[in-house]
Amino acid sequence: MNKDDRPRLAIDMDEVLADTHHKFLTLYHRDYGVAMDIHQEPGKELHENLPENLNGQWKIYINEKGFFRDIPPMPDAIETVRALQERYNVYVVSAAMEFRNSLEDKLDWLGDHFPFIPWTHILFTGEKIVATDVMIDDRIKNLAHFEGRKLLFTSPHNLLITGYERVNNWREVAELLL
Amino acid sequence: MNKDDRPRLAIDMDEVLADTHHKFLTLYHRDYGVAMDIHQEPGKELHENLPENLNGQWKIYINEKGFFRDIPPMPDAIETVRALQERYNVYVVSAAMEFRNSLEDKLDWLGDHFPFIPWTHILFTGEKIVATDVMIDDRIKNLAHFEGRKLLFTSPHNLLITGYERVNNWREVAELLL
Repeated sequence: MNKDDRPRLAIDMDEVLADTHHKFLTLYHRDYGVAMDIHQEPGKELHENLPENLNGQWKIYINEKGFFRDIPPMPDAIETVRALQERYNVYVVSAAMEFRNSLEDKLDWLGDHFPFIPWTHILFTGEKIVATDVMIDDRIKNLAHFEGRKLLFTSPHNLLITGYERVNNWREVAELLL
Repeated sequence: MNKDDRPRLAIDMDEVLADTHHKFLTLYHRDYGVAMDIHQEPGKELHENLPENLNGQWKIYINEKGFFRDIPPMPDAIETVRALQERYNVYVVSAAMEFRNSLEDKLDWLGDHFPFIPWTHILFTGEKIVATDVMIDDRIKNLAHFEGRKLLFTSPHNLLITGYERVNNWREVAELLL
């Protein structure tokens, strides 16, 4: 297949390629003894499930250098993205610009876990105004104005949202797109 | 006017918002005594105009931390972009991902000179696969596959290129778009 004829697929990082919730929970556990398997109420952000005195702590964590450097990849993400590259022009599109200190960490993290994605296919954005055919994202603010096929990647905070084609994990992405 | 109805305008950084050539020349002058007003042969990259032994030096400069931090803005860029924001949704789109060490510097530089552009309107990319109506760029590799209105911003290296709507400076951008 001519490489340029392949549809373009935009994939989000946090809570899609990277298990950012796990990193937060590791820090809350380490610093405040919060249980790693704390009940995450559907439809709530992770920090909304925490004791009230910790409500603002996530902003401190997420702005620290290194926060994004050692996040575990989501299960089956690496193998599935590698396979998707055969059929799609895969782009990683992360709204990294909100957090200055995340930029180098995110690029280095991609180099570690997804070295087969070239720099030409990485975009750090504000608004995700990308011209792709498919977008996988856990945030409807990114999907809402996108004109291609929208796949909502399940995360506790989006469990109550309806009206979107949903994928619950990377095996489901593989079933749907491969 | 409803803000969301404004056309989207993507603007490049290097040699469009930022006088990157000037920064290179300053370093070549400082380190090797190259004249600041060295003749730049139309159609050639800046480094192709230099003595042969300096051919690879630009890659060393451009990968250094700080290179992008203190570049002078292009004449009339700041005032014109501010005025363009009244009529356009202005996005800065820079292929910064090629140079890891440029990411923080470029974001900080924009904060200094274009603080009126919010982080939501900044994109650091590889390929510029953006869904905007207009793109201003000095590189036809970025314009070639773009589907909107393409404005080639004049730079010595692109002087021999024909077939593009051309803007020679920011005053011409203002005349054309305002």
